[in-house]
Amino acid sequence: MKQFSLANIAEYLKGRLSGDPALLVSRIMTMEEAAPGDLAVVFDARAAARIRESQASAFVLPMETDSMAENRIQVARPRQALIQLLHLFYPEPDKTPLIHDFAVVSPQADLGTGISIGPGAIIENGVIIDDGCQIHANVCIGQGSRIGEQTEIFPNVTIYPGTIIGKRVRIHGGTVIGSDGFGYLALDPGKLEKIPQVGCVEIGDDVEIGANCTIDRATLGATRILSGVKIDNQVQIGHNSEIGQHSIIVAQSGISGSVRMGAHCVLAGQVGVSDHVELKPGTMVGAQSGVIRDIGPGRWAGYPAMPVIKALRAYHLLPELPDLHRRVRELERRVNEIKGE
Amino acid sequence: MKQFSLANIAEYLKGRLSGDPALLVSRIMTMEEAAPGDLAVVFDARAAARIRESQASAFVLPMETDSMAENRIQVARPRQALIQLLHLFYPEPDKTPLIHDFAVVSPQADLGTGISIGPGAIIENGVIIDDGCQIHANVCIGQGSRIGEQTEIFPNVTIYPGTIIGKRVRIHGGTVIGSDGFGYLALDPGKLEKIPQVGCVEIGDDVEIGANCTIDRATLGATRILSGVKIDNQVQIGHNSEIGQHSIIVAQSGISGSVRMGAHCVLAGQVGVSDHVELKPGTMVGAQSGVIRDIGPGRWAGYPAMPVIKALRAYHLLPELPDLHRRVRELERRVNEIKGE
Amino acid sequence: MKQFSLANIAEYLKGRLSGDPALLVSRIMTMEEAAPGDLAVVFDARAAARIRESQASAFVLPMETDSMAENRIQVARPRQALIQLLHLFYPEPDKTPLIHDFAVVSPQADLGTGISIGPGAIIENGVIIDDGCQIHANVCIGQGSRIGEQTEIFPNVTIYPGTIIGKRVRIHGGTVIGSDGFGYLALDPGKLEKIPQVGCVEIGDDVEIGANCTIDRATLGATRILSGVKIDNQVQIGHNSEIGQHSIIVAQSGISGSVRMGAHCVLAGQVGVSDHVELKPGTMVGAQSGVIRDIGPGRWAGYPAMPVIKALRAYHLLPELPDLHRRVRELERRVNEIKGE
Repeated sequence: MKQFSLANIAEYLKGRLSGDPALLVSRIMTMEEAAPGDLAVVFDARAAARIRESQASAFVLPMETDSMAENRIQVARPRQALIQLLHLFYPEPDKTPLIHDFAVVSPQADLGTGISIGPGAIIENGVIIDDGCQIHANVCIGQGSRIGEQTEIFPNVTIYPGTIIGKRVRIHGGTVIGSDGFGYLALDPGKLEKIPQVGCVEIGDDVEIGANCTIDRATLGATRILSGVKIDNQVQIGHNSEIGQHSIIVAQSGISGSVRMGAHCVLAGQVGVSDHVELKPGTMVGAQSGVIRDIGPGRWAGYPAMPVIKALRAYHLLPELPDLHRRVRELERRVNEIKGE
Repeated sequence: MKQFSLANIAEYLKGRLSGDPALLVSRIMTMEEAAPGDLAVVFDARAAARIRESQASAFVLPMETDSMAENRIQVARPRQALIQLLHLFYPEPDKTPLIHDFAVVSPQADLGTGISIGPGAIIENGVIIDDGCQIHANVCIGQGSRIGEQTEIFPNVTIYPGTIIGKRVRIHGGTVIGSDGFGYLALDPGKLEKIPQVGCVEIGDDVEIGANCTIDRATLGATRILSGVKIDNQVQIGHNSEIGQHSIIVAQSGISGSVRMGAHCVLAGQVGVSDHVELKPGTMVGAQSGVIRDIGPGRWAGYPAMPVIKALRAYHLLPELPDLHRRVRELERRVNEIKGE
Repeated sequence: MKQFSLANIAEYLKGRLSGDPALLVSRIMTMEEAAPGDLAVVFDARAAARIRESQASAFVLPMETDSMAENRIQVARPRQALIQLLHLFYPEPDKTPLIHDFAVVSPQADLGTGISIGPGAIIENGVIIDDGCQIHANVCIGQGSRIGEQTEIFPNVTIYPGTIIGKRVRIHGGTVIGSDGFGYLALDPGKLEKIPQVGCVEIGDDVEIGANCTIDRATLGATRILSGVKIDNQVQIGHNSEIGQHSIIVAQSGISGSVRMGAHCVLAGQVGVSDHVELKPGTMVGAQSGVIRDIGPGRWAGYPAMPVIKALRAYHLLPELPDLHRRVRELERRVNEIKGE
């Protein structure tokens, strides 16, 4: 178990130390779950008020706090400090690059250096995997796909043929990329003919994709996830859609086909977006909303998605509908009375 | 094919037999789908009224029925009888414990006795698997995870490193447990830095988790699924959340991060719960609801989740909104008339 | 790269050619993404108006257009022409049937001719796979299942024991078929006893199922997906439900248990259907709707699902609720004034 002294940590964080510089801590933990020997990171004054309830031995606190923790390190940006501490205490283990005997790698695949491929992984012919990639167990990468350097693909992921993936991408377990777009034509009445889906999926750099997501290939051309996009678990992205740079899509949201989402958009959980809709850069959509026409920028919510202030007011009044009905009935009665009806 | 006489079944169920005690039945079936030779279980008087439409040869009926089925066994609790009959007619097959040659089991894994591990399963180093577990084909169990006795994990499940799973747990195909929580920090404007997710997932005893679910690891500490919880398919549970004992979560519901759900809660299908929300023990939430603040106990529904009686009334009136508008317009016209405007 | 002359293509499509019959094109592309050398298919007059913005070298246009593209082929049904062209330019590659050395096929499985089985696929005993099937890498097919001819199952799919699948079915990556239905009985207060799920899943012919779907086995009898059904990604279908012929279910929709959906129904994305509900043949349900009682035929939308015209009006007025409240308050004030209160 790694241990660090408060003095070391204060220096590492460029923070202001009070208390015992020789005190050793061995874990980073939340205030609530901390035990003696732990260092807890406190983000703001409100949380700092609960320091006395925590069993942590020391605290990282915001600079401006007047909290009375005996052993503390005060820093300008405690959230950033948390990330730094997590990297210090839990460094990525050095992995010896290894292509497992039970991986099935086509001789026509082109592998860079420093690559790990787990047991049961299948790398088909024509696949290019750049330096430093980690392909975990039972991942399938279809023919002609390209994986950029330092990308990590977790177990049981399926990459269909012809998929292009950038650098430093992380794709979590069970996700499927490049399955057929959902396109049929009702040629004869009631019988559906499949439209062949011959496009592909292109994913930029520094993208993270959660577990059990699905991203469909384009009918023609490409479904595109641009660089810096972060996608949570169980997100569905339809054929020919484009997700703009650094956008965030929270769990269980569904993007239909041919959607254009600008850069820096945020979809909260379980949002739905209809096909061919455009979201302007910087559009934020509240959880469970339904976007059925072009919107943005700014904050939107509800069904159909409306400016958030309007949605808050409308949904706040929804439970009052029975009361409103009663009042209208009463008004009708009184007006009838006045008119002598 | 197993066959049992009505006399044997009546004795097994401690029920009251009428009709032919020597009659043999070979399947348990619903009334609707039963064929001659089948035994159908009828839960209540309403269903019993349709007995004559069924082709079943015999029926299990509630004690208080006055149904006229010729061959019948009457029992106090027909639902419990169904479970007993299913165990009688469809016993779990005896499986010879076997670690398949095509499984990849680390020599540093610690296996109990009576364990089955299917082909293509990957057991990394430091994993502990207790007695009587069944690990199906292509399951990946990451290093340092612990699986309690008699637990069954179905094909293509991904267990990330450091996951703790209790006894008699069942995890269905394609589920991913322990993937990274969804946490980023916008340090530079518009660029997202990943918060390392160094916590884990802890699952209690007698938990069942459906197919293609995702349960994220905690940022720090643990995401916890307490004992007796039953989770349907495609459920998402975010980092650092805790699901209380014997709670039920129906398909496609999504629990955000740091949610506290008490014991004996029930979420119907496609419910969403916002982060940091608390549900008191015994809270029941209707399908497609959105829980955006602390609620419970009792029954809730709608968006935002409100007491169910309020939700029923409000959503019942939603289709009447156009009519309500018309009435208000009419009132305005009449009041103007009265005031001579 | 395949190339075809406009003359060849016009003959193949039985279309009317204008321009250079010897012009060679090598890709089918959308107008927006086309480059010189591409043939773009234009579906209607509205799209045809944007022909001048496209870099495509030639166009397939509807017969009745008066568009001025120099090189063009006019056809009666451009959407059908697109499907024909996709088959021409991107024919399915001839695959040499191959059972991979790293597949695990039980000697008690019964395989037809012309079958491909990928590495890491597991075919248990008693499985029957008919002629011409393609079983991709890491697919698990449980014992006693039957797969009809020409069916294709993509990587990492899990088929539980006893599943019946028809001819020409396509099942995309990560999908799980035949996992346990979600059924428990609260025998002792607060403790849930599992109802054994001993039924199966039956899938007809010409069905397509997207990626990461889940279809549960029946408690008794069968969960049935009838012939011609098309299911998008991340769809959940509960135990004992039946989906009628040629129905369409869009992504992330959830069907509870014992639902009866007639033929030619369409569920848009993220729809939920309560258990034991019946949808008449030809029912269409808008995105994100909640179907909580028997409906159909015709178009429905909203929560609870109502006729679409009613839903459009109601949801259109939802954002006006605050204004309606204000107007009712004002009416109350004026009526009080009139009555001298």
